[in-house]
Amino acid sequence: MKFESGNGVYSMDKWRKSDKKIAKELFELARKRDYANLIDIIQLKSKNLTIPETIWDLREFLNYKAKEFDQKYDYRYSVLDQVFANFIREDLLSLDEFQSLSKEKQDQIQHMVNILGKLS
Amino acid sequence: MKFESGNGVYSMDKWRKSDKKIAKELFELARKRDYANLIDIIQLKSKNLTIPETIWDLREFLNYKAKEFDQKYDYRYSVLDQVFANFIREDLLSLDEFQSLSKEKQDQIQHMVNILGKLS
Repeated sequence: MKFESGNGVYSMDKWRKSDKKIAKELFELARKRDYANLIDIIQLKSKNLTIPETIWDLREFLNYKAKEFDQKYDYRYSVLDQVFANFIREDLLSLDEFQSLSKEKQDQIQHMVNILGKLS
Repeated sequence: MKFESGNGVYSMDKWRKSDKKIAKELFELARKRDYANLIDIIQLKSKNLTIPETIWDLREFLNYKAKEFDQKYDYRYSVLDQVFANFIREDLLSLDEFQSLSKEKQDQIQHMVNILGKLS
């Protein structure tokens, strides 16, 4: 898929150098928020620990989250549009926060949000 | 290893019927205390969660504890003397709490505490 812009033609998985720095900051912002949310959930679950099953449920939850984070925080440029679209769908980032990116990249990410939105 | 008593000769791994019921209660008492201790530790660790590493440290801790509990709570009569001796060494049970058991069984467990004490 290709997009026309004043500066030329960009394919879906190309990232301009000027966008890359902003992308990295947004990626780390999402991760930071995700970890803060996770800590809140763990602290709530820990307060409610009573019977043994709840301890091992917490263990399963953390094992699941470890795998989820490992898969979710994938910084390959080839998948980054989709990664950011997922962050938006999970309310870790808002579309407004992508305004510093080039218009082309914003459109690509918006497009991916729409595609993923239809799939789920 | 055999012990003489007024009621006959008992080998180290034999459990009288009258001792078995008490043993099961003591075993469950140790487990209950161990879980209560574990919940206290998890709640303390959860309060201190700050950076991502502490989340994954908690995960590792729970995975370790799951294996430890699985190995520790082994109710085969052939290993129960050693299991109880370990409970005593870990302060999950006191020797006083074994007073309802037959004198032979108390002596066997005390003997195992001594052996394990020397090894550690």
